[in-house]
Amino acid sequence: MSFSPLIDDLIESLRCLPGVGRKSAQRMALHILERNRDGGAVLAHSLTLALEKVGRCNQCRTHSETPVCRMCNHPERDVSKLCIVETPADVLAIEHGAGFKGLYFVLMGHLSPMDGIGPKELGLDVLLQRAQESTLEEIIIATNPTIEGDATAHFIHQQLQSLSVNVTRIAHGVPIGGELEFVDGGTLAHAFAGRKSYS
Amino acid sequence: MSFSPLIDDLIESLRCLPGVGRKSAQRMALHILERNRDGGAVLAHSLTLALEKVGRCNQCRTHSETPVCRMCNHPERDVSKLCIVETPADVLAIEHGAGFKGLYFVLMGHLSPMDGIGPKELGLDVLLQRAQESTLEEIIIATNPTIEGDATAHFIHQQLQSLSVNVTRIAHGVPIGGELEFVDGGTLAHAFAGRKSYS
Repeated sequence: MSFSPLIDDLIESLRCLPGVGRKSAQRMALHILERNRDGGAVLAHSLTLALEKVGRCNQCRTHSETPVCRMCNHPERDVSKLCIVETPADVLAIEHGAGFKGLYFVLMGHLSPMDGIGPKELGLDVLLQRAQESTLEEIIIATNPTIEGDATAHFIHQQLQSLSVNVTRIAHGVPIGGELEFVDGGTLAHAFAGRKSYS
Repeated sequence: MSFSPLIDDLIESLRCLPGVGRKSAQRMALHILERNRDGGAVLAHSLTLALEKVGRCNQCRTHSETPVCRMCNHPERDVSKLCIVETPADVLAIEHGAGFKGLYFVLMGHLSPMDGIGPKELGLDVLLQRAQESTLEEIIIATNPTIEGDATAHFIHQQLQSLSVNVTRIAHGVPIGGELEFVDGGTLAHAFAGRKSYS
């Protein structure tokens, strides 16, 4: 038996976090109660606040507590380039490493007719309208190199084909620091098909 | 740059959880906002409630939202046996596996003069009083088999020596399912010193 219903509830509710099982949840709950009550109070507060205030950005569909997000509003971003990604986590990854200074459009998923996720659910109507109206020079499709991500990229490319904007796809191949010996066949095939001349 | 100050705050505050770094915190925050807002709301609520209500049990010093905890109050526990452990997590571990049906006394740490943790901070005065007054037959010391845990066990044993209660220490040795080849020297020494006759 356990010693406190409230702690049992806390342990159970901590399991909503990804990667947290029963044992980790128990460790987290006891850690907060024994050693970091201030941190726990801050967490409860910021969680409540985020759930209450954070909605979607009208322009790029990512999480935002304002109608237009901080990124879309930023005066120093290059408005001539738009990068299409699947999730907000992809935005953070690109911001962290890629040196891209343009704007983003976040699909919040990929095409998946079986789950009822079609073009409308991904906001492709909004994207098309934006591509027609604005002064975009390049749209970079950076969906994941999975079957679903590739299918989504292909579909978006088709939709945008009639417009004057330049549509590109990020390169796929052997990752930097990777060794050929350990790279899978699909990636190697991509690397060979996408080979470039030195000239 | 990131897209939302509130999400940044949430990511930062999730790092108060043990074993959660920046990357995991980011994944947790986005998971809650994208896929499990209900779970997040429940978590915020139960965290607030637990921090507000959970204090200490007057009898065993563990976490409890009532003056005397559920375990100490339970009519079916064997009140003649008292098990002394370092932390509430130890209680849960013993409840999970040991088949012990007595009561607990939780030190909430071990003797550590350097950190200002002496007998009083561990509630040993409360323990001594309880051992004198009640009808305890056996006190089982189950502090960790570390230098600090052993020192604490030794000290508690000395304090209780003058009383009529039987004081025992849990056995230390080769864990069940463990292989001798991979067991450390200290544990093996304990296993040999504590050997028992078949008769």
